[in-house]
Amino acid sequence: MLLQDIEQPIRIELSQDRSYDVVFSAFDKLPEGLRNANLRPGKCLVITDTNVAGHYRSRIDSVLKDDGWDPLILTLPAGETTKSPKHLQAIYDAALAWKIDRQTPVLALGGGVIGDLTGFAAATLLRGVPFVQIPTSLIAQVDSAIGGKTGINHEEGKNLVGVFYQPKLVFTDTTLLYTLPRREWLSGLAEAIKHALILDEAFFAWIESEMSRILARDPEVVPDLVYRAAAIKAKIVSEDELERGRRVLLNFGHTFGHALERALGYGTYTHGEAVALGMKAALHMSRRFNRHLKQSRAEKVLERITMPPIPSSLGIPAVREAMSSDKKRESDRLYFVLLSKLGDAYVTDDVTPSDIDAALAHALGRP
Amino acid sequence: MLLQDIEQPIRIELSQDRSYDVVFSAFDKLPEGLRNANLRPGKCLVITDTNVAGHYRSRIDSVLKDDGWDPLILTLPAGETTKSPKHLQAIYDAALAWKIDRQTPVLALGGGVIGDLTGFAAATLLRGVPFVQIPTSLIAQVDSAIGGKTGINHEEGKNLVGVFYQPKLVFTDTTLLYTLPRREWLSGLAEAIKHALILDEAFFAWIESEMSRILARDPEVVPDLVYRAAAIKAKIVSEDELERGRRVLLNFGHTFGHALERALGYGTYTHGEAVALGMKAALHMSRRFNRHLKQSRAEKVLERITMPPIPSSLGIPAVREAMSSDKKRESDRLYFVLLSKLGDAYVTDDVTPSDIDAALAHALGRP
Repeated sequence: MLLQDIEQPIRIELSQDRSYDVVFSAFDKLPEGLRNANLRPGKCLVITDTNVAGHYRSRIDSVLKDDGWDPLILTLPAGETTKSPKHLQAIYDAALAWKIDRQTPVLALGGGVIGDLTGFAAATLLRGVPFVQIPTSLIAQVDSAIGGKTGINHEEGKNLVGVFYQPKLVFTDTTLLYTLPRREWLSGLAEAIKHALILDEAFFAWIESEMSRILARDPEVVPDLVYRAAAIKAKIVSEDELERGRRVLLNFGHTFGHALERALGYGTYTHGEAVALGMKAALHMSRRFNRHLKQSRAEKVLERITMPPIPSSLGIPAVREAMSSDKKRESDRLYFVLLSKLGDAYVTDDVTPSDIDAALAHALGRP
Repeated sequence: MLLQDIEQPIRIELSQDRSYDVVFSAFDKLPEGLRNANLRPGKCLVITDTNVAGHYRSRIDSVLKDDGWDPLILTLPAGETTKSPKHLQAIYDAALAWKIDRQTPVLALGGGVIGDLTGFAAATLLRGVPFVQIPTSLIAQVDSAIGGKTGINHEEGKNLVGVFYQPKLVFTDTTLLYTLPRREWLSGLAEAIKHALILDEAFFAWIESEMSRILARDPEVVPDLVYRAAAIKAKIVSEDELERGRRVLLNFGHTFGHALERALGYGTYTHGEAVALGMKAALHMSRRFNRHLKQSRAEKVLERITMPPIPSSLGIPAVREAMSSDKKRESDRLYFVLLSKLGDAYVTDDVTPSDIDAALAHALGRP
């Protein structure tokens, strides 16, 4: 289907007044989305980054002004290092010097970095102002913009400072994805596949059959991909807002993936690429415990997410070591999200070191 | 009554799992209080300031260790300037380098500054860790430690960055107040009187009759004073956690008080002193609209809160000017909390400039 065919927003059902919609719509209908979320024209603050600003800064400015908004747009450097106290302070300074009030919306126009940082700023300005996510990357549209995780990094690790803070609206225009670099598209695709694998076998089968069109970003399949993947994230978040239970299933592939990112040094692989490799390991481990799992179907799809070759210098012991030190907090235990079948995930910590080694050997192609 | 006679904690009733107790108990029973709040011995982080550390640092260290806790105590400079991004970062650094986890409690041992700052750190570390208030000043015991307002200052104004974050426990030992400097005692007393005036006529009558013993910090009346004033704060907070309604009544005397603080420059008066003067103005204005208000009884009590003389250079126009510029945000309106009678407050913005001038002239003794 095409973007304009999506009429129904995805509802995130939460208690009190925290429910909100993920609206699928063309960019120029943003003012309508804001009104439907009970946000009335006045001042608003837009946070974006240098990459996104090049494509969309003047567009969002005119779209908002046309409806009577008075937007102040702050463009921050692109990249993970922007999730820092320094850039958080830059948002505070801009917002407060501009005399925002408790009704002034703060809009994040960007990917996961801008969304996380802006959400944290919105949560903490004047003890909370309205927050709107306008995700511009696939990973943000299907994952990070939904669910209220906000925060910044600390030198001790990623996302160690933050809060849960739900947006009033997630406004998703899938046509923004056509300007995304290919590698970022594939990285987001890994997360979409992850959502299918943990909860929705039919969606996985659809991805499997449409993979070529998905890779080509065919406008007739992209909206389906985003909508269905976002719906899975929405469902899990609605059931477990504060990550005390089921939400942990979203970490499928992440125990291995984080360890790979760490062992290789951040930046070698994108997060999505590391998760794709991590899922390959997790699928192998899942199969060990669940003999009927059709892991080869899943692996075949994942193999189409091309990525830089694994450096031959990377040894399995190094990844295993990174896995232990990735237990950031003392009380963290090493746990794995596994699949009993395609579309059905569970959590376990009952695995042996040799299970882990075998899974890693498989994912890294080291027989 | 004596501290040990208070058996019943004050309950703050909030939705979901956010309810908590204000427990009145001697300092050495802190571990019992922590257990009752479902906090189990392990690591904990204690934030305090140089003033409080001199009295209680070694005591809290040994009390916690005796029950199996492993406390890390961080002592920050005393004073309002500690509510800054720099000291917030110092807490993050200490906590994360020490590898706290989501179960590690963070304890604030101090007055309002330490409580607000520590609460904000607890709210934002790992998206929220358990937070415990151990208020050591009167103003903190009756007001700031209860209700979940946390935050830091920004150069644009006080408390502009923060969140609502409820503690798991407020642990109040009224005997800590005997080491408080007299001026701070009086400052807190102004807030306690404010609570009585807005909501509890009987409590006001009790303060009126016991004022001499209160000023002398008689151990037989101090626990009553703190308990009854804290109970009023607790009641209002339970009804209006996020300050969308009734909670604003707690600002009785504050529209004038803030303007006085601002016009004189912060530091000339303590916050409580400024509020005491502000209440004098608000009482005068209240009487204009409510002819049967016995404002002279209230003023007589407030006059016993001695404070530095009002500088003769301070003119009424300067205070009025500060009042307008105190409307920090564009949409803020100038409103006043007034009394219809002792123990009954309401909000209005329907006052004339001459009402304001008359009230100020009265409070500043400028006929």
